[in-house]
Amino acid sequence: MSDHAGTDRIGTRLALSYDDVADAQRVLAGHAHRTPVLTSRQIDTRTGCRVFFKCENFQRIGAFKFRGAFNAISRLSHAQRERGVLAYSSGNHAQAVALAASLLGSKAVIVMPQDAPQVKLTATRGYGAEVVTYDKHATVREELAAQLAHQRGLALIPPYDHPHVAAGQGTAAQELFDEVGALDYLFVCVGGGGLISGCAIAAHALSPQCKVIGVEPEAGDDATRSFKTGTLQRCHNPDTIADGARTPSLGAVTFPMILRHVHDMVTVSDAQLLQAMLYLWERMKIVVEPTGALAGAGLFERKVDMPPGARVGVIVSGGNVDVRDVCRWLAA
Amino acid sequence: MSDHAGTDRIGTRLALSYDDVADAQRVLAGHAHRTPVLTSRQIDTRTGCRVFFKCENFQRIGAFKFRGAFNAISRLSHAQRERGVLAYSSGNHAQAVALAASLLGSKAVIVMPQDAPQVKLTATRGYGAEVVTYDKHATVREELAAQLAHQRGLALIPPYDHPHVAAGQGTAAQELFDEVGALDYLFVCVGGGGLISGCAIAAHALSPQCKVIGVEPEAGDDATRSFKTGTLQRCHNPDTIADGARTPSLGAVTFPMILRHVHDMVTVSDAQLLQAMLYLWERMKIVVEPTGALAGAGLFERKVDMPPGARVGVIVSGGNVDVRDVCRWLAA
Repeated sequence: MSDHAGTDRIGTRLALSYDDVADAQRVLAGHAHRTPVLTSRQIDTRTGCRVFFKCENFQRIGAFKFRGAFNAISRLSHAQRERGVLAYSSGNHAQAVALAASLLGSKAVIVMPQDAPQVKLTATRGYGAEVVTYDKHATVREELAAQLAHQRGLALIPPYDHPHVAAGQGTAAQELFDEVGALDYLFVCVGGGGLISGCAIAAHALSPQCKVIGVEPEAGDDATRSFKTGTLQRCHNPDTIADGARTPSLGAVTFPMILRHVHDMVTVSDAQLLQAMLYLWERMKIVVEPTGALAGAGLFERKVDMPPGARVGVIVSGGNVDVRDVCRWLAA
Repeated sequence: MSDHAGTDRIGTRLALSYDDVADAQRVLAGHAHRTPVLTSRQIDTRTGCRVFFKCENFQRIGAFKFRGAFNAISRLSHAQRERGVLAYSSGNHAQAVALAASLLGSKAVIVMPQDAPQVKLTATRGYGAEVVTYDKHATVREELAAQLAHQRGLALIPPYDHPHVAAGQGTAAQELFDEVGALDYLFVCVGGGGLISGCAIAAHALSPQCKVIGVEPEAGDDATRSFKTGTLQRCHNPDTIADGARTPSLGAVTFPMILRHVHDMVTVSDAQLLQAMLYLWERMKIVVEPTGALAGAGLFERKVDMPPGARVGVIVSGGNVDVRDVCRWLAA
């Protein structure tokens, strides 16, 4: 990583600096979409702020995850790309690795539970990946993945806890600042912390006064507790519709960056999240997945005191949701 | 209207020409959104065409109707605007007239059935309009509207059958050609024919080889039958989820323009429409209402033979739909 990486408040050397985000931007140019920034008069009126939505639901594979996966795979040696890459995920990271590998002439093996939704298995195979399924009750996926990686010489592409992954995700915020200039606040969802780490690094460099606010589901508030206590906290398979935020904890790479560059962490309930998601659908006419509405929910629920007229960025992280699931949540 | 208006194939003088669309464009500049044109690799692959979606679901009030309403109201005399305007609609036209009147310093009276969804009554009032409700079983809305217009000296803004309205709607296609150049096909939904009339006039002027295809719901196929027979056909309150296409017939202004400048008319079932709508939601991450998905459904269902690689425009006409209604349709 860069020589310019800083140290966090407890003295640990941070895994990445803005130079790494800028490098990722160059790598992603022409491959990732430069997603649109949308605004809404009605939302500005409702919030009393000037709000800019960075719409990663329009990113390739429908979520920001493509950025980190492509950046990470592109940094592998030619020989490693020839051997292939591996990921275990049943979510957006699976499709991100599958597509990025395919674009970079590599082969992806994705480990998914055998009861994953058929639509996700099909979509991942559709991007050219080999899907290896396992029985959740009989197999520990990490062990299966390690075994496959070893047998076939595959490089594991982690979903968030890697400097190249976090740097790639940070290009979302970098593009936002590039397009709209400095902001007073930036709301970002938090699962394993890859997106917010990269975005906070970009904010620190490009809009130093900007306060970065992480938003988590109430049921999976491990990152909020970790942030408040300064000690890594965990949660086990939290019950939330925000499937992208069901991660057990922040990581060794992301936690120090969050402690150093994030200003506050807040939580929203699933009911608030569903309401925010439908509000974005019905007012902005964009399809947003629950995790993708976390940042907006934090804003709409006024979880942070902001002066009138504040310039606020909101990362809409993804849009991969089955409408039938939304109907179930509405009926519940 | 312009001196350059042509005549239709049966000799009637057409109500508008491209000059009227160009005039409308100048009137709308800075007031209507120039909506985005979106593309999708997956949809190109699926259709074998290069498809450009003109996204009027991102227009003000969430539908193209704002264009026609604003253009029509802006052409009224100052004195008339002082007295006010009137519309009867429980759909997008109501909100379009309400917002356009408010922006132009006029006052709108909107006649709506008393059992219209509360959200629509509230939204229309939210744009500053006076809503007059009536009992559908006891009152003929046209009579009530005529009486109100007479008593208060209000100008009626018709939903489609007026040259200024159709010219305003045509700016949607004009912007599309302006952005992407000539097209081989343009798919447009048809209710009363205001949108397709204006768009066909724009296509004829800006991309003369472009074939304009109208798409209707099967249950409300009056415009298709009118087009095929050359005689105005009607249907009564058709049973379709495409509420914007429940109009009884084309109009005196729109029918001749459609006969002259539209190349074919096709229909799709509600099941095909729902599937197309959800496909647009899940692949393009945009919220589209049923009527707004008609044009896309005509393309996806291959209702017209097109050569591989054809350049195809699709007007996504609006995005005002209640997700709870979608859940009902899915469960039906």
